Amino acid sequence: MAAKFLPATTLRLTPFSTLRFSSFFHISKPLFRPLRRPFFEGFPANARRRCFCTAVSESTGSGEGKKVDNSYENRFGSKVGEFRRKLKIAEVKGGADQGLGRVGQSLSIMGWVRTLRSQSSVTFIEINDGSCLSNLQCVMNPDAEGYHQVESGSVLTGASISVQGTIVASQGTKQKVELKVDKIIVVGKCDSSYPIQKKRVSREFLRTKAHLRPRTNTFGAVARVRNALAYATHKFFQESGFVWVASPIITASDCEGAGEQFCVTTLIPSSHETTDSSIDAIPKTKGGLVDWSQDFFGKPAFLTVSGQLNGETYATALSDVYMFGPTFRAENSNTSRHLAEFWMIEPELAFADLNDDMACATAYLQYVVKYVLDNCKEDMEFFDTWIDKGIIHRLSEVVEKEFLQLGYTDAIELLLKANKKFEFPVKWGLDLQSEHERYITEEAFGGRPVIIRDYPKEIKAFYMRENDDGKTVAAMDMLVPRIGELIGGSQREERLEVLEARLDELKLDKESYWWYLDLRRYGSVPHAGFGLGFERLVQFATGIDNIRDVIPFPRSPGSADF
Amino acid sequence: MAAKFLPATTLRLTPFSTLRFSSFFHISKPLFRPLRRPFFEGFPANARRRCFCTAVSESTGSGEGKKVDNSYENRFGSKVGEFRRKLKIAEVKGGADQGLGRVGQSLSIMGWVRTLRSQSSVTFIEINDGSCLSNLQCVMNPDAEGYHQVESGSVLTGASISVQGTIVASQGTKQKVELKVDKIIVVGKCDSSYPIQKKRVSREFLRTKAHLRPRTNTFGAVARVRNALAYATHKFFQESGFVWVASPIITASDCEGAGEQFCVTTLIPSSHETTDSSIDAIPKTKGGLVDWSQDFFGKPAFLTVSGQLNGETYATALSDVYMFGPTFRAENSNTSRHLAEFWMIEPELAFADLNDDMACATAYLQYVVKYVLDNCKEDMEFFDTWIDKGIIHRLSEVVEKEFLQLGYTDAIELLLKANKKFEFPVKWGLDLQSEHERYITEEAFGGRPVIIRDYPKEIKAFYMRENDDGKTVAAMDMLVPRIGELIGGSQREERLEVLEARLDELKLDKESYWWYLDLRRYGSVPHAGFGLGFERLVQFATGIDNIRDVIPFPRSPGSADF
Repeated sequence: MAAKFLPATTLRLTPFSTLRFSSFFHISKPLFRPLRRPFFEGFPANARRRCFCTAVSESTGSGEGKKVDNSYENRFGSKVGEFRRKLKIAEVKGGADQGLGRVGQSLSIMGWVRTLRSQSSVTFIEINDGSCLSNLQCVMNPDAEGYHQVESGSVLTGASISVQGTIVASQGTKQKVELKVDKIIVVGKCDSSYPIQKKRVSREFLRTKAHLRPRTNTFGAVARVRNALAYATHKFFQESGFVWVASPIITASDCEGAGEQFCVTTLIPSSHETTDSSIDAIPKTKGGLVDWSQDFFGKPAFLTVSGQLNGETYATALSDVYMFGPTFRAENSNTSRHLAEFWMIEPELAFADLNDDMACATAYLQYVVKYVLDNCKEDMEFFDTWIDKGIIHRLSEVVEKEFLQLGYTDAIELLLKANKKFEFPVKWGLDLQSEHERYITEEAFGGRPVIIRDYPKEIKAFYMRENDDGKTVAAMDMLVPRIGELIGGSQREERLEVLEARLDELKLDKESYWWYLDLRRYGSVPHAGFGLGFERLVQFATGIDNIRDVIPFPRSPGSADF
Repeated sequence: MAAKFLPATTLRLTPFSTLRFSSFFHISKPLFRPLRRPFFEGFPANARRRCFCTAVSESTGSGEGKKVDNSYENRFGSKVGEFRRKLKIAEVKGGADQGLGRVGQSLSIMGWVRTLRSQSSVTFIEINDGSCLSNLQCVMNPDAEGYHQVESGSVLTGASISVQGTIVASQGTKQKVELKVDKIIVVGKCDSSYPIQKKRVSREFLRTKAHLRPRTNTFGAVARVRNALAYATHKFFQESGFVWVASPIITASDCEGAGEQFCVTTLIPSSHETTDSSIDAIPKTKGGLVDWSQDFFGKPAFLTVSGQLNGETYATALSDVYMFGPTFRAENSNTSRHLAEFWMIEPELAFADLNDDMACATAYLQYVVKYVLDNCKEDMEFFDTWIDKGIIHRLSEVVEKEFLQLGYTDAIELLLKANKKFEFPVKWGLDLQSEHERYITEEAFGGRPVIIRDYPKEIKAFYMRENDDGKTVAAMDMLVPRIGELIGGSQREERLEVLEARLDELKLDKESYWWYLDLRRYGSVPHAGFGLGFERLVQFATGIDNIRDVIPFPRSPGSADF
């Protein structure tokens, strides 16, 4: 029943490096006839393989309408094929039985060679497709079809291959099943200069190979856990009735507040083709200032540092919203904790106070951590073994233990009584430093997340709600072991007069805040929210110590490559 | 059993505009004792209300550790309350029985007043909380607690209120149930200057009130449908085994390709505080050029126009990935179809060809459209009635009908034979214009989405895979009624030599593409992907004709406010 394919004689390159993809696919409709496309001999039709397209019409690309029917659909169009989920290694080996249920099944897998070991009569190939940490071990005898590619040295670490065979119980102890290969095709060879060889390379080195590092165990696992955290974030908020809102990235609004921001402009080159920009070409006023009126937005525009103020406009219409998007800091901090570009999760809850805010932050963190523990078991075991021993236990405690809260005033008292020397001073009115935060969560509370609340208003932002004591605001920081502050939030000042007085006090221009104040003018409500740096969360969940290793393409001073 | 609360005597403002939020909440633990916080008289404990925090410890903020136990947890910490989903109008009225199952239930709802009608003995208040299009009708007699606020004129359109009462069957025909109010509290009054009154206002006007427009029917519905499309996007790809990858927003990579880009810099003001920038303050070289070496990234950096090239690096490691993030165009297009900042969905499939790509795009679009039809019924009926008659039928056809594909060559033939005058010429080798695309999908194929494939290589990007004819590339555009091109994709050129030859042909600098070429050097695989402007999708699903009305804060030439 196997459809027969012809060799790819029209291809320009060596056959094995340029195989047409279609040749790997099982064609389920026996009537399928390739017209213009030559194919390699295919796999038998009963093999389990990725198979998106079940129908390719005869008229595709032929330009000839052979039927007399006058409708365009019949004269010109042909159907689009069916989309099917690709069979991946995670699916083959990932079940509770680690694949034993598939023993005897014939299937094919496509991926990249991690290692190849040839013994006298048998060759072992470890193949990985990125769907999970572990490879599929492929066992091949010299009589397997395509074995000459092994002999000729085409099957090297990094090469992409397609293997077809039968799942058998493995005799090794590292896996329950393996693939007994009937046929191998090298899809793409790997040049010997491939920098990701089996020997371990440093994470610093891999940062210079950001385009290849996801092919390593560590960065593959980070990518999967990061993905799980992102999806769990959406799930948590969607299931709780929150609406995702896209806060703007570019903003010319004056009320973005402090912090070093990136300027977004078209006054200097607007493409790579003209980066030799003469200073004289920049539009200027008579006074020698940059003439912003000629810029794209007609005034200076910046990359956002937070979507919160915008988010409040939607929270006071839709009740509960969350932002999840990139934010930016132009701070010249070349540390393992800072990025110039990072993703932020910022929920905003209407009709909510600080207690609700803390409850939501706690429930959120427990949900996403549990999701990762449940759904990324293998990756988490990898981190526990190789990156951060004990991380699974630590995260399990986050899920199981109740979070504690204490007032800033209490926290200061606790620190003053601590039998420990701190580098930075501890005094009511001063902000807590990382060493203080970590002492509280790691030592004083034995690894339990702790929320500090009610900070002095002088060290917090203008929009935080003033407490009745007149000295503190309804702010909260959630501290977690290893990271320190993971989440920062507050109840927002919803009282127009109090907010205006605070703006005056801080000598901020009320006019620029007109729309933010409008929210207090028209049906104001108590509301609260928090912010969470997504990369900090990925660090927390993986134990990776440098933040540049938990985002695909990190941006920092002097570095925006790829 | 009701917990008793005290009046908020310490509040600075009028009691009704500054109610402490906690007063609206049912406290489930009888031992709860407010310490520092005064409260209004609360609602009875059997009322159903939002109730996140079930426990507030005695020691909260008191600073006094009364217990002798020495552990910090007991001396300082108290537990964080439990997070619960807020009861919203959508939940009350949204079920199949439209709320009839809740008749007799006592509950409370918080939201914003849409309208108020007072008759002699009864007052009707329509309240909306953004969870759904429809309001909850509240019926109140003069003996309801807080009725004096109605009499004094505090309950105006736009005011935020909390109402508590019993769900009863409605005598009106517009809804099955309504709330018989026992108690009303005005949470935040609404100034009479409120611009969103009942009379209809233009969408142009509302663009100047972007902070308030989500409180209207149209923009509330757009926000909910937009949210549903975003979540359905994540669900579709996650369920299909794709990994979400954050492609970088700022990029100094030279291979971003053509198109007007925004420059990201700290050479000119890096905060709003110093926007009076002297031209002389910009670092320059001896030759009078901008000295990029002194910029944040040490060279010119830009906002991304697409995450595709970066995405390919992850697809060739993890097999299937998708990007969903903001992208930017500095084009001076002040049209209803263009934004300077918009969100893009860009999946990338390894071991896939153009047929797989089309199949995936089709399945994706059908999935998200079906999700919206299933989950946003009321909003879609609103759009069908008020914005775009027939849209539900049109979208249902998208879900049910098979999509068709035809070659570009066939499309040209079809257009040449069409009994229609086009403004732009139709000729093999020229790109299809919007009028051509809409003719094909709307007229020739009667409203069915159509995919055009195999375009002349001269009008497509360098990375698209060359077909065997040497003239066309494996590109595809999906055309849909009303919008024209919704999705554009291609199989990527995976053959190193062919790609290098193409770069040479186009006089592009191969050196800048070193990492992109590496993907073809080390285990290259056939791969394909597509891009979809998210706002175009929201337009397609809502019928809203101006793209600035389907993103919360649109950015266009001269406009980056809020």
